[in-house]
Amino acid sequence: MLIVQKYGGSSLQDADRIKRIAERILKTHGSGHEVVVVCSAMGDTSDDLIDLANKVSTAPPVREMDMLLTSGERVSNALMAMAIHERGGSAHSLSGAQAGVFTDSDHGRARIVDVVPSRVRQVLDQGSIALVAGFQGVSRDTGDTTTLGRGGSDVTAVALAAALKADVCEIYTDVDGVFSADPRIVDSARLIETISYAEMLEMSATGAKVLMSRCVEYGRRHDVDICVRSSFTDRPGTLVSHSVEDTAVEGFCVTGVTHTRSISKIVVEDIPAELSAVAHIFEAMASAGISIDMLQNLGAPQRTELTFTVAGEDGPRAQELLEQHRTRIGYGSVRCDAGMGQVSLVGAGIRSEPGIVATLCRTLAGIGIGVPLISVSEIRVSALCRADQLDEAVRALHRSFGLDSAVPAVVYAGTGR
Amino acid sequence: MLIVQKYGGSSLQDADRIKRIAERILKTHGSGHEVVVVCSAMGDTSDDLIDLANKVSTAPPVREMDMLLTSGERVSNALMAMAIHERGGSAHSLSGAQAGVFTDSDHGRARIVDVVPSRVRQVLDQGSIALVAGFQGVSRDTGDTTTLGRGGSDVTAVALAAALKADVCEIYTDVDGVFSADPRIVDSARLIETISYAEMLEMSATGAKVLMSRCVEYGRRHDVDICVRSSFTDRPGTLVSHSVEDTAVEGFCVTGVTHTRSISKIVVEDIPAELSAVAHIFEAMASAGISIDMLQNLGAPQRTELTFTVAGEDGPRAQELLEQHRTRIGYGSVRCDAGMGQVSLVGAGIRSEPGIVATLCRTLAGIGIGVPLISVSEIRVSALCRADQLDEAVRALHRSFGLDSAVPAVVYAGTGR
Repeated sequence: MLIVQKYGGSSLQDADRIKRIAERILKTHGSGHEVVVVCSAMGDTSDDLIDLANKVSTAPPVREMDMLLTSGERVSNALMAMAIHERGGSAHSLSGAQAGVFTDSDHGRARIVDVVPSRVRQVLDQGSIALVAGFQGVSRDTGDTTTLGRGGSDVTAVALAAALKADVCEIYTDVDGVFSADPRIVDSARLIETISYAEMLEMSATGAKVLMSRCVEYGRRHDVDICVRSSFTDRPGTLVSHSVEDTAVEGFCVTGVTHTRSISKIVVEDIPAELSAVAHIFEAMASAGISIDMLQNLGAPQRTELTFTVAGEDGPRAQELLEQHRTRIGYGSVRCDAGMGQVSLVGAGIRSEPGIVATLCRTLAGIGIGVPLISVSEIRVSALCRADQLDEAVRALHRSFGLDSAVPAVVYAGTGR
Repeated sequence: MLIVQKYGGSSLQDADRIKRIAERILKTHGSGHEVVVVCSAMGDTSDDLIDLANKVSTAPPVREMDMLLTSGERVSNALMAMAIHERGGSAHSLSGAQAGVFTDSDHGRARIVDVVPSRVRQVLDQGSIALVAGFQGVSRDTGDTTTLGRGGSDVTAVALAAALKADVCEIYTDVDGVFSADPRIVDSARLIETISYAEMLEMSATGAKVLMSRCVEYGRRHDVDICVRSSFTDRPGTLVSHSVEDTAVEGFCVTGVTHTRSISKIVVEDIPAELSAVAHIFEAMASAGISIDMLQNLGAPQRTELTFTVAGEDGPRAQELLEQHRTRIGYGSVRCDAGMGQVSLVGAGIRSEPGIVATLCRTLAGIGIGVPLISVSEIRVSALCRADQLDEAVRALHRSFGLDSAVPAVVYAGTGR
């Protein structure tokens, strides 16, 4: 088998953790597999480098920021190579450029445009372990060093797995895998053993932090099996795969309950009943780069009321923008409630099952939680509620949709990432 | 003018120093010059990285050590670019590979085999300041990242100056330039304003630490004017140049007094008077990689006595080796005296002036310093003495050869190197 493994910063926090991971890598290699390893920067390295940048500059140029930040992965990869050699193994560390990770020139959040892993292949052909610096690439146009933005090391791993036609891409983290709810909130959360790309995408998009949508999307498009596992245990973790979708049975099943904590609800009242008025509102948001998530337009013959949600920190700005445009749009009043949260049910076939929304409402009503907004997609139902009721909502829904496990979820506390 | 500037780690110790250096660079650029800057790693970065390596490995592979260490210069260069942008300037940082510094594959002490600075030229043509990571290159054969070993950043600067046909290569350090003696020992040491490559080479080889022989040699071969200056003052510093040699007058002049503190003296007595016996001794040293510096062979009809010097730390090993070969060589006894030092006079035409050795011996005898060995080259006289008498010897010779300045040398204390 050809296995790509990715280790995050919390798994590489210090020399001792690096040595432990080196042993794990050697164990996999010793079982007769070809192994490619993608390492993130050690622990807080990136934060320390950003602090340094802020000391010399109020607005560091993105190109230089990339040159700065990519040093972190060079360090962790070189140290990993040393730790592997120390244990009698053979490993070669490669920068993003050396590994053939080509990107566009959008510094700080570059997209991968091509992967030509000929040097990685060469290292594997020599029987060595290939270590590739995550999060970084080289601009195909300028030859400059680029970074891939948040979750970039995961994308590096999946992209290499795709280009090398790896059998699996293992994303090592500080939890056992993807859970049916956040185990810090729901004691009885269950580890999800297998999940389809589509469901994982929805879970990532609605709050599951263990994998970013971008990485799942890359895996889906290039048909890469992704396994999310703990770097501290030998448990099998969660497998995200096409094969899961193929074997899905008819009907619905709720796979998990996710949540997002910081949401602002904007209510605009007494809007003239012309289509252009509502269009004005969304144009104002768009021009300020504010994304809208859930929305509801309560129509009436003459005047309408619009409710929508934006990211928590965008709330006050959205309200201010609307105040500025009040006379032009001609609405009555605008309110912003920054203390909202969203709970979601994710599962194949959810839309086709009308009983789900009813169960959701009944469950939340039963514990006194009001739901001002609900949105439904093919495989997801999301409900808005007060942020201080969110944990309770997650627990109640997890229970009422039969997800509670008999044994409590074991959480392996990491240190962020 | 095209000016290459190199700043050492002590000039880049923290964010404040980086900002100060950024202003200096901008001042030069603002005067209408093209500027290429080579930065070393910040302060103790390299030592910290080496500590990390030693934590994960008892014998880190040299290739990975190079990948690790080169991250330091990427950081300092990116931060310098940010600091320059912050002040309204334009700068681009380049890794050694991007700057076209090609080396052999001798990791940890690679030699530059070619410099193709087309990207540096491109940055300059855009009116920007080019920042190049010092100490590093890329192997022409393998594409791996390499480091140039001790004094590597100086070599990067001089090599770029040569390839770009720069008007001058300025090496910024924490002292005002090259002095007629170490100002920490001789209060009245004088700043040397101009010096020939040949003299500078001898001074570097015999203890002047401000420039390494390797860098001077590169400059001499490629005819690069090297200016050693302080990064904390605006003084002109010391110019090392071909033009100096051309204007040298007939006769001799002592340019400086240098010293090396840690030397071991080996004395082998009662050696058979056959040429092969002495050859055996030197073969034993060579096979262990021990370099011999001064030597004296006191011949006698039947038996001879040999005295030679090695680096201080090689002394005990040299003695041990000779003990092992005693019967084969057939000598009587071997002694090692590890507490020796060497004082040197450097100056054009020294060999042709027999009075110099006489003055040296008279001066040292006058203050009770015995000299067991003296060696003379074209532009240098070196004398061995006890290490605890070395400072006194340096001061006395500086005075007797008329080098004392009326005003005391000002030392700008840095932080090492």
